[in-house]
Amino acid sequence: MIRAAIAGASGYSGAELVRWLQGHPEVELGALAAGRQAGRSASDVFPHLGDAVTADLVGTDWDRLGAADVVFLALPHGEALGAAGRLLEAGARVIDIGADFRLQSPSAYRHWYGGEHTATDLLAEAVYGLTEWRRSAVARARLVANPGCYPTASALALKPLFEHFGDRVAGAVVIDAKSGVSGAGRNARDGYQYSELNENLKPYGSGVHRHQPEIEQELAVSGVAPRVFFSPHLVPMTRGILAACYVPMTAPPSRDELEAAYLDRHASEPFVRVLTGSALPQTKATLGSNYCDLAVRVDAERGLAVVFSALDNLVKGAAGQAVQNMNVMFDLPETTGLSAVPVFP
Amino acid sequence: MIRAAIAGASGYSGAELVRWLQGHPEVELGALAAGRQAGRSASDVFPHLGDAVTADLVGTDWDRLGAADVVFLALPHGEALGAAGRLLEAGARVIDIGADFRLQSPSAYRHWYGGEHTATDLLAEAVYGLTEWRRSAVARARLVANPGCYPTASALALKPLFEHFGDRVAGAVVIDAKSGVSGAGRNARDGYQYSELNENLKPYGSGVHRHQPEIEQELAVSGVAPRVFFSPHLVPMTRGILAACYVPMTAPPSRDELEAAYLDRHASEPFVRVLTGSALPQTKATLGSNYCDLAVRVDAERGLAVVFSALDNLVKGAAGQAVQNMNVMFDLPETTGLSAVPVFP
Amino acid sequence: MIRAAIAGASGYSGAELVRWLQGHPEVELGALAAGRQAGRSASDVFPHLGDAVTADLVGTDWDRLGAADVVFLALPHGEALGAAGRLLEAGARVIDIGADFRLQSPSAYRHWYGGEHTATDLLAEAVYGLTEWRRSAVARARLVANPGCYPTASALALKPLFEHFGDRVAGAVVIDAKSGVSGAGRNARDGYQYSELNENLKPYGSGVHRHQPEIEQELAVSGVAPRVFFSPHLVPMTRGILAACYVPMTAPPSRDELEAAYLDRHASEPFVRVLTGSALPQTKATLGSNYCDLAVRVDAERGLAVVFSALDNLVKGAAGQAVQNMNVMFDLPETTGLSAVPVFP
Amino acid sequence: MIRAAIAGASGYSGAELVRWLQGHPEVELGALAAGRQAGRSASDVFPHLGDAVTADLVGTDWDRLGAADVVFLALPHGEALGAAGRLLEAGARVIDIGADFRLQSPSAYRHWYGGEHTATDLLAEAVYGLTEWRRSAVARARLVANPGCYPTASALALKPLFEHFGDRVAGAVVIDAKSGVSGAGRNARDGYQYSELNENLKPYGSGVHRHQPEIEQELAVSGVAPRVFFSPHLVPMTRGILAACYVPMTAPPSRDELEAAYLDRHASEPFVRVLTGSALPQTKATLGSNYCDLAVRVDAERGLAVVFSALDNLVKGAAGQAVQNMNVMFDLPETTGLSAVPVFP
Repeated sequence: MIRAAIAGASGYSGAELVRWLQGHPEVELGALAAGRQAGRSASDVFPHLGDAVTADLVGTDWDRLGAADVVFLALPHGEALGAAGRLLEAGARVIDIGADFRLQSPSAYRHWYGGEHTATDLLAEAVYGLTEWRRSAVARARLVANPGCYPTASALALKPLFEHFGDRVAGAVVIDAKSGVSGAGRNARDGYQYSELNENLKPYGSGVHRHQPEIEQELAVSGVAPRVFFSPHLVPMTRGILAACYVPMTAPPSRDELEAAYLDRHASEPFVRVLTGSALPQTKATLGSNYCDLAVRVDAERGLAVVFSALDNLVKGAAGQAVQNMNVMFDLPETTGLSAVPVFP
Repeated sequence: MIRAAIAGASGYSGAELVRWLQGHPEVELGALAAGRQAGRSASDVFPHLGDAVTADLVGTDWDRLGAADVVFLALPHGEALGAAGRLLEAGARVIDIGADFRLQSPSAYRHWYGGEHTATDLLAEAVYGLTEWRRSAVARARLVANPGCYPTASALALKPLFEHFGDRVAGAVVIDAKSGVSGAGRNARDGYQYSELNENLKPYGSGVHRHQPEIEQELAVSGVAPRVFFSPHLVPMTRGILAACYVPMTAPPSRDELEAAYLDRHASEPFVRVLTGSALPQTKATLGSNYCDLAVRVDAERGLAVVFSALDNLVKGAAGQAVQNMNVMFDLPETTGLSAVPVFP
Repeated sequence: MIRAAIAGASGYSGAELVRWLQGHPEVELGALAAGRQAGRSASDVFPHLGDAVTADLVGTDWDRLGAADVVFLALPHGEALGAAGRLLEAGARVIDIGADFRLQSPSAYRHWYGGEHTATDLLAEAVYGLTEWRRSAVARARLVANPGCYPTASALALKPLFEHFGDRVAGAVVIDAKSGVSGAGRNARDGYQYSELNENLKPYGSGVHRHQPEIEQELAVSGVAPRVFFSPHLVPMTRGILAACYVPMTAPPSRDELEAAYLDRHASEPFVRVLTGSALPQTKATLGSNYCDLAVRVDAERGLAVVFSALDNLVKGAAGQAVQNMNVMFDLPETTGLSAVPVFP
Repeated sequence: MIRAAIAGASGYSGAELVRWLQGHPEVELGALAAGRQAGRSASDVFPHLGDAVTADLVGTDWDRLGAADVVFLALPHGEALGAAGRLLEAGARVIDIGADFRLQSPSAYRHWYGGEHTATDLLAEAVYGLTEWRRSAVARARLVANPGCYPTASALALKPLFEHFGDRVAGAVVIDAKSGVSGAGRNARDGYQYSELNENLKPYGSGVHRHQPEIEQELAVSGVAPRVFFSPHLVPMTRGILAACYVPMTAPPSRDELEAAYLDRHASEPFVRVLTGSALPQTKATLGSNYCDLAVRVDAERGLAVVFSALDNLVKGAAGQAVQNMNVMFDLPETTGLSAVPVFP
């Protein structure tokens, strides 16, 4: 059994980690640390859990957490910088759900997150955990930087296109992404009240969102340096991301050609489903599951390829992919504990 | 392995049965019959399933269905009257999610459902499958009448009170129940359009709903003949039932006394959670799971006991309880395949 | 023109007052005071208003506010206790949307609101502004206590029954009320995040809500001292209240008899609509308007009369009724500025 | 007084026309025709209206309708082809909310709507009623083709850019649009059930939606022939459209420069609001009103200008703009009867 601990267990990503880990057949759930909520019972903080998790939340004691085999960090950005090192020294492996080890460049970190990166040695070591594209590195990693929710949806959507047809991309890729509200976390802010989000749809952070450089970095690995304009929106629902990726291309491939590349790439992927025919991804078809659904379209006349991507931001976009990475790190079948199908309707 | 088949697989209850049965470790999912949708692939009718279920939907061929060990019927009322007998003759056991075998009296059936009951011999044999209260009978049953969603919420809420304090009930019990829209089924009707249900809350069928006699029947078993006024409402959400049960009592017990009766009764129930302290049931804390949450309050001055009950209408209120009954019928641990915790948030 | 000012303009009730008053043909909108938001422009705090209101929000300066003809108070409870007197002395008339002058008994105020009532002389003078039932007193009032949202829905639903058949009421009246989230105000709290309210339905404050004594007080005026058990629920929508009122009766009147009493009472009421036939109130049919819709049902066998009531909690349940009271106080036709029909769908 | 009639009064656009016209100070509401619902009272079909409209719905009698001064057509496409001529002959002016007279080319109509255009003479005469850009032509028109909801949002967003900087547009414009469900009309279809739309977000008709050629046509008037890729999505809310328009440009103007063009163009427009600073359009800030909110952004490095646009699809996207056109046609102040501010929250 893998002994797993969580720091930041009381937020939505933390809760989702608890949901998946408590049902994981190879995991023994250890310390659930949560600063402000320490001392409360898990079922008090998360009434849905009932007595499925009987532990109380505990304070964030790194020594105690470091005794686990793997520690999941679901912390505000900046807080994992110091924690990761302590946990690694204690012998635990670390999966950081937060943003501290995602951008490979310290200066990019400074620019986008507004502080010095104080663990640059670990930054060099950290593996960006987009599982489908980094399996072997993840397997060996001590420290995994779990991708952001939007970058997961975007990179899964675009990497096959860039790999196969990257030389034909001509201009900035526009990613118009729409997210349910849980992506904003559990800390309520002005403008995020129920009454102001419900029956409302709004863009935010257009072109200045922190996930934009993360996506550009992840698409660049194939040798091309793509320019991405990332344009997120807040949608009146709890879970789900739908990314529409618009790629200007000179001589775009036909839809069949493009679709074949996607089908081929994902033929043996357990969590990526390529939709064909008239089907298009929809968030509800992934709700509560670790699936990411993809579909491609091509408009030759307008010189555009379009890739749609849907996933549950708290699962494949956070906790689910983290557990998937854990499975890879501990040499388990990748779907262990993750085989739940979506809840529909 | 239990070979299971479904008739009426394309509706919401059918889809939910597929969701639970495809992940059940002791079940081999057989024919999925669905009249109008026969010939379409399961993943076409239910995009969330992807290739988790590769079968096509088939026509409703009772001989084929009867070859299964157990057949779940998720049919419009009236259609199970003839089907049940054929399936039982073929050797299958039958769990009817519909209403045809719930009311024990043929004249009540005629009054509330508007047709003759043409299988009165089976009606006498059928076991009302409120699992927590009928385990031994369910275990032996060939034909189980799976309770309605509202009656499940209501009976689980009220039976301990009636059992312990039924002689103090003084007057009509009011059950004010609120349901998500999925309870109305997959067939869209006027007034059920998204735009007219969203941001809307409405009562319907107040005092004349078909679940009222079912609840009265189920509460009557303890010897008392309660009068229930059942008042359902439609709420702008997909899943979930919240029933508030108001019981006028002469000399009501104290809250502690009443709560103790509930805690005691459910101490070893895996799917009923009695909330204490200031906690009250909420539908989201049960979403996607087979739990039913209960809490009691007493207003001695006003001569009222109040019991709140929450569950997911498609799980404990339909498909989940059906699988729970199947587990009992086939001598499996009752929680087999049903241990998923709720999806939150 | 009536010069109107608002204290507490930045909350939801305040915003709704601004919406109605800026379009009122006999009102000149003056100071909009809002403690924390002072100095910001109205269109910044309320983007929907655009330049329909060009004023900046100001600090809460009672002298400045007192120069208006009428001041609306939309303040946290306790804050109107001192303010009302100062404004009346300055010559303004006051309509308090808050709770400080609703309960006639200082000890009830202390019990339910947890502080001394420090303006008992004004409490004696204040008129409870349920317009349909207090027109002549409201017309003369200097200080109007605008009813709470739930009490408005409940009292409009029950007063005709109590007036005509109050002697047959036998036992505690149960009011099971359901409200959209805007009733909880603009200050986000734990448990009120979008992700935890959406697709969720939950009871709260059952039997201990501050509106319970207000309803009992308001129903008592007919000479009977009714006992009310008030049981509110939070529903995943922004606006709207639906109250279901269950009245145990000895020898209840027939539905026709009861309905006739309601139709007769409201024949010339512009804002109360009595639904007949199979129609039942639904919140969306009142959304954005000052209407309250009512319907009655009777179950003679079970000794119950049931009255359903629907309204928009921010309009007839708050700002709209306040403007209606202002119209009465200033001798305008009662519907002036309030004739908008609901927004549907 | 203008005598106004409606054909197709029982759908959502029809209902919204009734809402605005019944409160319009210069309109006398005449025949409300609705094929299937003829004979039912308006308040039965639209419970929100109560007795604000006392008429019964009538059958579609063109002679009777033609006696009005203006007839609004809210019909399925194809049905206005014959009706328009009859009404014009009878002396009425016609505002067609549907699609029959929007595309100027009969072959485009055939291609996108699948039938012959049988009233090509009227097609040549019809004025495309994007009020802000066609006032003088609308004023003189006998027949106005009211723009589609998406084209209204898109054209208002893009025309100033094309007018000022059209020569710098380099490549296909991507319009990623998101709509509430009411845009799909009142006829429920499979996949449009509440339970399948709620908590769901899905693209549809990407690159093949009928509004794409309408938008291209409308942007082309300035001399440039833009290529538009139109990509609509269905969002779980009732009302509202948010269009994000991504324009690839060589040497894009600065944001200040672009914003100045928009502010200048709309300085005296009563219904177009250009947001500046950090504000971005959101649908709720327009809900129930005739406003369209715009904001611009520029990413010089990526060669992109972005324009966001929000409106209420049933108001500025349908019935409200139709009434605005009527005001222009009958020489009334353009805001007459349309001055309601949005309902918020």
